[in-house]
Amino acid sequence: MEVLPVEGMPEVQPGDDLARLIAEHARPRAGDILVVAQKVVSKAEGRLRKLSDIEPTPEAEGLAREIDHDPRLVQAILDESIRVVRKQRILIVETRQGFICANAGIDHSNVPGEDTVSLLPEDSDRSAAELRARVRELAGVEVAVIVSDTFGRAWRMGIENVALGVAGLPVFADYRGQLDDHGKELQVTVVAIADELACAAELVMGKTARVPVVVIRGYTPEGRPGTGRDLVRPAELDLFR
Amino acid sequence: MEVLPVEGMPEVQPGDDLARLIAEHARPRAGDILVVAQKVVSKAEGRLRKLSDIEPTPEAEGLAREIDHDPRLVQAILDESIRVVRKQRILIVETRQGFICANAGIDHSNVPGEDTVSLLPEDSDRSAAELRARVRELAGVEVAVIVSDTFGRAWRMGIENVALGVAGLPVFADYRGQLDDHGKELQVTVVAIADELACAAELVMGKTARVPVVVIRGYTPEGRPGTGRDLVRPAELDLFR
Repeated sequence: MEVLPVEGMPEVQPGDDLARLIAEHARPRAGDILVVAQKVVSKAEGRLRKLSDIEPTPEAEGLAREIDHDPRLVQAILDESIRVVRKQRILIVETRQGFICANAGIDHSNVPGEDTVSLLPEDSDRSAAELRARVRELAGVEVAVIVSDTFGRAWRMGIENVALGVAGLPVFADYRGQLDDHGKELQVTVVAIADELACAAELVMGKTARVPVVVIRGYTPEGRPGTGRDLVRPAELDLFR
Repeated sequence: MEVLPVEGMPEVQPGDDLARLIAEHARPRAGDILVVAQKVVSKAEGRLRKLSDIEPTPEAEGLAREIDHDPRLVQAILDESIRVVRKQRILIVETRQGFICANAGIDHSNVPGEDTVSLLPEDSDRSAAELRARVRELAGVEVAVIVSDTFGRAWRMGIENVALGVAGLPVFADYRGQLDDHGKELQVTVVAIADELACAAELVMGKTARVPVVVIRGYTPEGRPGTGRDLVRPAELDLFR
């Protein structure tokens, strides 16, 4: 398996044809998995907000005082969320898409202007599917696409890349019912391979270098294609929210 | 970056010189990162228990009834744990090493005999350091070693590989204070690269195939070497335990 950074991508602007930029710079082959950083997807889709346009509600003002944040940023976070899960230094929320993450995935790095923040894509699975279809159209090859972002975790330090949106790829390797080398049935072994692929890609993305796209080559999981939504643990199965 | 499965490893037995098996089959080069599945480390170190040797306490009996488990397995889990974090279908515990995981990382797959379970290494950082030193001795090259296992996560479906023990490698990429392409300081961006490397490796390990060791080549993170212990979130910084 190879994990290849796509270099030389220009700064992405709202309205850009991101798939064309990817097709030109990544030169994808059939079967490649393209991991695309959420930030460039959001920028191409115009998922940006100017803080100076935001009028915080009293709720946002109160919360902002509590955690020492800019109330306009807190308002932007609340606008993207259905629930605050924890508040302590940062806001950990459940986003409209079901993700549990800090600040609803909103941040201001790698976005032009002091005043502008990027939001997560409205529907990362749709973003992934659209990129996949457009790459097929432009490059003539079937690829899989993962739209990824780095999230914090419970219990462990540091952030890690996750698959927000997925197209053309199984998201799990399901070993249930299979036998190990000793003929015993494997225990709970549904592996979140789409998240693991996002992790592999992050290693060569870096944060400051302009490598928003990574090609993973030589990995062909079997199974039915899934979505980023499948990776979100339903509330009733979640002991930690 | 290449992620290369090490094939042809024999079944590992208690007392085996695991580093020799790795050196012979992986043929490591200087700078390689060797990701070694916890299961073979535990087997080589004799970290196995026979359920038939275990006399469950009344506490284990009660807990076993509650979650419909073998009381001897529950006893083995309690023996490896300092605290039960959640009990519902499975036991999520804090292990003696600080890991929050299901069943204290104990399982019976890929272990010979219906009656035998494998425990996590007593000290995965020590295991990693010993493997690293012994590979240096045998193969004459400096490598990094990650001892990995798959853990479940809060909020997201599926298990994912994590770095339990680390030697010769920074565990975080710390971008704090660095500037993005627009000259703005990056926000919370301490990336758990050792966990991401474990994830990358898991993709080619599989669960049924006998690929307990993976070589990651062409990835050379900068920074001070860390440990698996550094990746464990201290209780006072953890909002979810």
